[in-house]
Amino acid sequence: MNQAEQIEQSKQKAEVLTEALPYIRRFNNCYVVVKYGGSAMKDKELQKSVIRDVALLKLIGMKPIIVHGGGKEISKWVRMSGKEPEFYHGLRVTDKDTMEVAEMVLFKVNQELVAMMAEAGVKAVGLSGKDAEMIHVTKKEMPGKDLGYVGEVKSVDTELLEALIEDDFVPVISPIGLGDDFEPYNINADDTACAVASALNAEKLVFLTDIEGVFVDPEDKSTLISEMDLAQAREFIEKGVVGGGMLPKLQNCIEAIEKGVARVHVLDGRVPHCLLLEFFTEKGVGTAILKEPLF
Amino acid sequence: MNQAEQIEQSKQKAEVLTEALPYIRRFNNCYVVVKYGGSAMKDKELQKSVIRDVALLKLIGMKPIIVHGGGKEISKWVRMSGKEPEFYHGLRVTDKDTMEVAEMVLFKVNQELVAMMAEAGVKAVGLSGKDAEMIHVTKKEMPGKDLGYVGEVKSVDTELLEALIEDDFVPVISPIGLGDDFEPYNINADDTACAVASALNAEKLVFLTDIEGVFVDPEDKSTLISEMDLAQAREFIEKGVVGGGMLPKLQNCIEAIEKGVARVHVLDGRVPHCLLLEFFTEKGVGTAILKEPLF
Amino acid sequence: MNQAEQIEQSKQKAEVLTEALPYIRRFNNCYVVVKYGGSAMKDKELQKSVIRDVALLKLIGMKPIIVHGGGKEISKWVRMSGKEPEFYHGLRVTDKDTMEVAEMVLFKVNQELVAMMAEAGVKAVGLSGKDAEMIHVTKKEMPGKDLGYVGEVKSVDTELLEALIEDDFVPVISPIGLGDDFEPYNINADDTACAVASALNAEKLVFLTDIEGVFVDPEDKSTLISEMDLAQAREFIEKGVVGGGMLPKLQNCIEAIEKGVARVHVLDGRVPHCLLLEFFTEKGVGTAILKEPLF
Amino acid sequence: MNQAEQIEQSKQKAEVLTEALPYIRRFNNCYVVVKYGGSAMKDKELQKSVIRDVALLKLIGMKPIIVHGGGKEISKWVRMSGKEPEFYHGLRVTDKDTMEVAEMVLFKVNQELVAMMAEAGVKAVGLSGKDAEMIHVTKKEMPGKDLGYVGEVKSVDTELLEALIEDDFVPVISPIGLGDDFEPYNINADDTACAVASALNAEKLVFLTDIEGVFVDPEDKSTLISEMDLAQAREFIEKGVVGGGMLPKLQNCIEAIEKGVARVHVLDGRVPHCLLLEFFTEKGVGTAILKEPLF
Amino acid sequence: MNQAEQIEQSKQKAEVLTEALPYIRRFNNCYVVVKYGGSAMKDKELQKSVIRDVALLKLIGMKPIIVHGGGKEISKWVRMSGKEPEFYHGLRVTDKDTMEVAEMVLFKVNQELVAMMAEAGVKAVGLSGKDAEMIHVTKKEMPGKDLGYVGEVKSVDTELLEALIEDDFVPVISPIGLGDDFEPYNINADDTACAVASALNAEKLVFLTDIEGVFVDPEDKSTLISEMDLAQAREFIEKGVVGGGMLPKLQNCIEAIEKGVARVHVLDGRVPHCLLLEFFTEKGVGTAILKEPLF
Amino acid sequence: MNQAEQIEQSKQKAEVLTEALPYIRRFNNCYVVVKYGGSAMKDKELQKSVIRDVALLKLIGMKPIIVHGGGKEISKWVRMSGKEPEFYHGLRVTDKDTMEVAEMVLFKVNQELVAMMAEAGVKAVGLSGKDAEMIHVTKKEMPGKDLGYVGEVKSVDTELLEALIEDDFVPVISPIGLGDDFEPYNINADDTACAVASALNAEKLVFLTDIEGVFVDPEDKSTLISEMDLAQAREFIEKGVVGGGMLPKLQNCIEAIEKGVARVHVLDGRVPHCLLLEFFTEKGVGTAILKEPLF
Repeated sequence: MNQAEQIEQSKQKAEVLTEALPYIRRFNNCYVVVKYGGSAMKDKELQKSVIRDVALLKLIGMKPIIVHGGGKEISKWVRMSGKEPEFYHGLRVTDKDTMEVAEMVLFKVNQELVAMMAEAGVKAVGLSGKDAEMIHVTKKEMPGKDLGYVGEVKSVDTELLEALIEDDFVPVISPIGLGDDFEPYNINADDTACAVASALNAEKLVFLTDIEGVFVDPEDKSTLISEMDLAQAREFIEKGVVGGGMLPKLQNCIEAIEKGVARVHVLDGRVPHCLLLEFFTEKGVGTAILKEPLF
Repeated sequence: MNQAEQIEQSKQKAEVLTEALPYIRRFNNCYVVVKYGGSAMKDKELQKSVIRDVALLKLIGMKPIIVHGGGKEISKWVRMSGKEPEFYHGLRVTDKDTMEVAEMVLFKVNQELVAMMAEAGVKAVGLSGKDAEMIHVTKKEMPGKDLGYVGEVKSVDTELLEALIEDDFVPVISPIGLGDDFEPYNINADDTACAVASALNAEKLVFLTDIEGVFVDPEDKSTLISEMDLAQAREFIEKGVVGGGMLPKLQNCIEAIEKGVARVHVLDGRVPHCLLLEFFTEKGVGTAILKEPLF
Repeated sequence: MNQAEQIEQSKQKAEVLTEALPYIRRFNNCYVVVKYGGSAMKDKELQKSVIRDVALLKLIGMKPIIVHGGGKEISKWVRMSGKEPEFYHGLRVTDKDTMEVAEMVLFKVNQELVAMMAEAGVKAVGLSGKDAEMIHVTKKEMPGKDLGYVGEVKSVDTELLEALIEDDFVPVISPIGLGDDFEPYNINADDTACAVASALNAEKLVFLTDIEGVFVDPEDKSTLISEMDLAQAREFIEKGVVGGGMLPKLQNCIEAIEKGVARVHVLDGRVPHCLLLEFFTEKGVGTAILKEPLF
Repeated sequence: MNQAEQIEQSKQKAEVLTEALPYIRRFNNCYVVVKYGGSAMKDKELQKSVIRDVALLKLIGMKPIIVHGGGKEISKWVRMSGKEPEFYHGLRVTDKDTMEVAEMVLFKVNQELVAMMAEAGVKAVGLSGKDAEMIHVTKKEMPGKDLGYVGEVKSVDTELLEALIEDDFVPVISPIGLGDDFEPYNINADDTACAVASALNAEKLVFLTDIEGVFVDPEDKSTLISEMDLAQAREFIEKGVVGGGMLPKLQNCIEAIEKGVARVHVLDGRVPHCLLLEFFTEKGVGTAILKEPLF
Repeated sequence: MNQAEQIEQSKQKAEVLTEALPYIRRFNNCYVVVKYGGSAMKDKELQKSVIRDVALLKLIGMKPIIVHGGGKEISKWVRMSGKEPEFYHGLRVTDKDTMEVAEMVLFKVNQELVAMMAEAGVKAVGLSGKDAEMIHVTKKEMPGKDLGYVGEVKSVDTELLEALIEDDFVPVISPIGLGDDFEPYNINADDTACAVASALNAEKLVFLTDIEGVFVDPEDKSTLISEMDLAQAREFIEKGVVGGGMLPKLQNCIEAIEKGVARVHVLDGRVPHCLLLEFFTEKGVGTAILKEPLF
Repeated sequence: MNQAEQIEQSKQKAEVLTEALPYIRRFNNCYVVVKYGGSAMKDKELQKSVIRDVALLKLIGMKPIIVHGGGKEISKWVRMSGKEPEFYHGLRVTDKDTMEVAEMVLFKVNQELVAMMAEAGVKAVGLSGKDAEMIHVTKKEMPGKDLGYVGEVKSVDTELLEALIEDDFVPVISPIGLGDDFEPYNINADDTACAVASALNAEKLVFLTDIEGVFVDPEDKSTLISEMDLAQAREFIEKGVVGGGMLPKLQNCIEAIEKGVARVHVLDGRVPHCLLLEFFTEKGVGTAILKEPLF
């Protein structure tokens, strides 16, 4: 590199850093709940990269909380234990043995994330919703079918989370809740993230998915919507613009905002450093749904 | 019951309560590490009873920490995953897959204990040594054999434990440590309990075992030694009085005391309420090894 | 004792301890005001036993406050100082000199209790209502007779009490208040206890008396009422069931509950360990009046 | 008063206030132990005046502690209780009954001071050395005579004092200590003040006496020594200049300074506002013994 | 001085000190904003005397804040920089250069006061309204004339003041505010003092002026009004009794009280120790306007 | 920009942000003293850019302190006040009037920086070394010439700085100290920065200069030394490699490190964002002198 190139590169670096300034300022000391799981958790290297970005958020003063899913591994282990996984309307029918396996697999994922956080220089603490009775659930009722240990979040007690965050630890949460019968219940990870973010009045809730965001025309990548407010999001749904896997995700976003989260982001977790690019650059790389129109 | 009987019963109740007074006073606010595992964790009902007693200790002002083991279940699940468990000089040869299974099974046990604590009215938080990088380990070297992910405790960082206990949570710890390679390592549960107790300068370390204590003559139950000090414990070993499974246990006790624990108890975990009876009655029900002669 | 007997005894001891668990849990960290005085303060040994029980309450996490009376000793010392004690409708006519004697005698009692607390291993601090202007009184008006320095509680400033309790001291209070003329006034010890308990929103107020509790039929000891709620207590009085010395006591109980105390106990202070038996056993040994029906 | 006189008066007032400035500054936030008792406690009005001055010290930021004596009243009440007071080498022979009377009388004095403090607008708390086991004593041994409950200070636990002062209360202490037998012991009030001041590392210890200070020539009031340092005080004693009641007092001063008190004042408690004049004017009105030469 | 004279002098000194007691008590821990400037800042010696008195207020527990003016020096420096000072309806027309000079001169005054405080033994911190964005202003609009950088107080952020006072520093404030354009604006020192006092809910606001107070008959010095309440102050203005320089000052006083200040004093800053005499003597030396009738 | 370009740009942005991570982590919560002045303070726009970068450091968790100089403006104003600036061996001869002017000019600079900080969204507080008696100086002695009010730092009291930083304010310090005569003294800004950094045990001390760093061959810009340790820095001086304006600067660096600063940076303040580039990129843009070899 010659001197002119060096100067140009320095200029560009400085621009990136100063572009990040107003965002770093605004989000300093805020809770950020990151839902990470499913197909976005492709491979170890991608995971490590995501986790390093979360560590960065922590280091510059934000308060991240990770909620993870278990994904396809659960079925693999259920089969290994000699059962055939069963689903009903997309929900895993969860008998006692299946729940046991689910818990074990989720913990494996949880502890891998905790170890990656350690490697990235930040102390994480793995939790399930049973720890300190953090997440209480009710059994999910489905007409015509007993789903077993499938729960819906009834309440989130943030005492443990706040204590850990106060002491500079990053909580990593498995989507398991405690029933009134003191048994563990499987809960949807997106719902868990949403409930935790609401209970903390989080500034941000991020869904790291395997989709690239919300598009006006899903066929045309140039129609990505960078930001929309609550009214627009509702309109999208009403008009039927949004469909497929995006619909429940968007409904979740709306619900989170209604319950007190300031901003929900839908990001493509496969894009390297999507968290940093979404949070700290003007344009971002996914779709943000805001409580109120920005600025 | 007639009135005289009632009066007699009241008198007896009051006696028990007042007998407990000086012990409750002395141990108020003290750390008590309870190693619970292996064959002492016989069945659910017994477990619940032990956990309720730990909850009682917490409620009256002690600071209990539970360290549990995984026992025979690990081998069961290793087999289920298609491997044959392998041991070398009593230590489980732990390849990557086996470690994964071990972690999962330990977590299952951990979360069962956490749920039982919740049922007993006390908020517990399940931890592994990886959480907050609490337990760092070195790989255990064994001449002539690579044991894989078997570790020895290098250091215990009590920051997370102290933060949780300060906020009135009860830590429940799985015997897993973090290696310098940020991989999980299997560690002996007794050693883990001993290391945690030392790091906290615990007042008490309790081994809930399936033996009844230390006997002068193991054949004669009336020769149970209720208390001995460090010198006596060493003498016992030198004289070869103690043997079998008791020998490593007793060596562990001695080591714990040398590292700062004030009192180590070896109790038969199958005796109902053995913790309460050992702590709060004069005679106790097991063997206590003391730093210094009592009183 | 043979082994079978030992096992039986251990079982009974464990039962007592575990029966106590839910009560210890519920009352942890609660204010308990114990009125102790008059004929219940029979002799030194009984006093020491009561005080040891109060110390136990403190040690297991409750926050006891003792309010004591002076009893018959005051008259003895008034006579010694050359006066004849005078009463009017049951109230001691208290001139300046008599008040001086009353204060001195109450202090003597106070400091004896403080020393007993020390002996029981708990640091107590003797107080009168004049200390830190804790209890302000108004002169008690009685038509047709000037009672002298007899006061009624106007207000209780809990600042000193809370500071002492926060620092783990047990307050022991003499029933003396400060008048607007900055003179000491004699106040009824039951009223004092009631006012202190109300001001602290105490969980429990206990009257240690020389009666065995409230009975449906005072002649039949088997008709002891273990618990009643506010409505029942009022009904009892209306129906004229309760009479004699019990009537003002019961009215005091009702008043305390109306002013914010959660539970008032009337116990026979002569029953050894009545505090422990009432608080920590299911049946109790006296009568409890509750704000709301229990459970 | 005409205008010129008014201006002159204002000037004088301002001078007094500004003269006080460096002293108020220097002693801000310092512990001041005031021994007040014996013949200096002449009458109620004088007492009230002294107490108002102590209140002033408190209000402007110093931390006063009062230690009082009982004086001649004890003998009066001992006689009233039917005994003849007995002294041995100047010390009161104190049997159980006498001790009881002494405690009562001291408390009477104590509570009068507390009430005066309240009247002066400052919250005081009366204490004996038994409260919170503040002052532990050993029995005073005298060859050839059992003095009974006469003690010497063994240790002062300042925990209660510091807690009360931290919460802005003024402690008022009776010279009674707790023996190893948990019985009260009579202790010399000067010694008590000295021990309390040492334990608190007090900035000032003041003896309010009925003498006017230390004189080079006791016959010539103009030879009052305003200040002397430790060396001078010792020289005075060695040279035999000081005698009579002043000798033990001066020895007490020296001992207090040796144990950590910075400055000891001997004042004539009968001079109105002697505390203010001694502390806040350049010349003072009594004798100050200093650790080190002033300025 | 003979002995009788000494006793008399002592008596007088004690009287002054005890007269000050109830005032010192009442104003302990209160905010006192002292506006000091203009013609009252006659010479260095007078300034030092005033500052020493402020230091005294601090030392005895009050929380003084000084707001100073710049006075005639600004014009001198403006001329030196080559401009002719310009006024419009009594307000300085302040272009950019003039503002620069004004800021510099005010800082010079500010730092002289800070150094005097240091000399008087109290740590002061010089501030402008720009520091920590303490005082935000709006540009003062005047029909027909652009006054330039002349501002009116919009808001006072007390965070910095409270932090400094909490740490025992005395703030010394220059009357400069920060505009929305982040430029400095000149503000009237009386208004600044009034706004700061209101924002702090100060107990006292003092105007150190060069007038002797408010008089019923300005010609007759014996008609000085020592105290008046809000109603009386308003009546005075309505009746036209008050005129000249006193009118805006009195309106300022009324406004300050309406905005939360408890008491405003108008004092003649040229009278030595006027602060001490006004605050700590019964009669005072100036005029006090009170929120409510005193006592 | 087409999609491929966008992706490339995102990648580059992410790289910059992640490159910054280990540095942000390492310097989190550290004191950074930035000396800014003289010829580096070229124009308003450059100043604003530097200040915005300091604001960024603050926002991401560092604790910046600015020490500024006054530069050539002082001479300008001295002349305006009618004096001819006088120097002796490079030091300004500072009589009383000159000192007054110097103080005023420095304050002007100070308050401009404070306003720029406000504009950049961070609350700054302007200070001189006189505030809270922060910097005590001794008069600088020069044989054969009285330099007047020129001082050398004697001590730095960090109490005020720590209090302000604790409350999230950024101190901006003028190089003026307080003499024992309570007069202001001119001090060298580099020395002031060095003394403040030492007193705070700062992690970093930065000299923003108008030179580009230390070069092996000043003629060849490619010989810039990015980092050197203490030993190397000393060697450079000994070998005479460094000369001109760089020599005293490098000596200052060495002294700062010897007194406890961990790292000193010499940067060209005219390079845009030099602080960000030096701190958060691997290569940096200036010369860093380290206590110990990095990594």
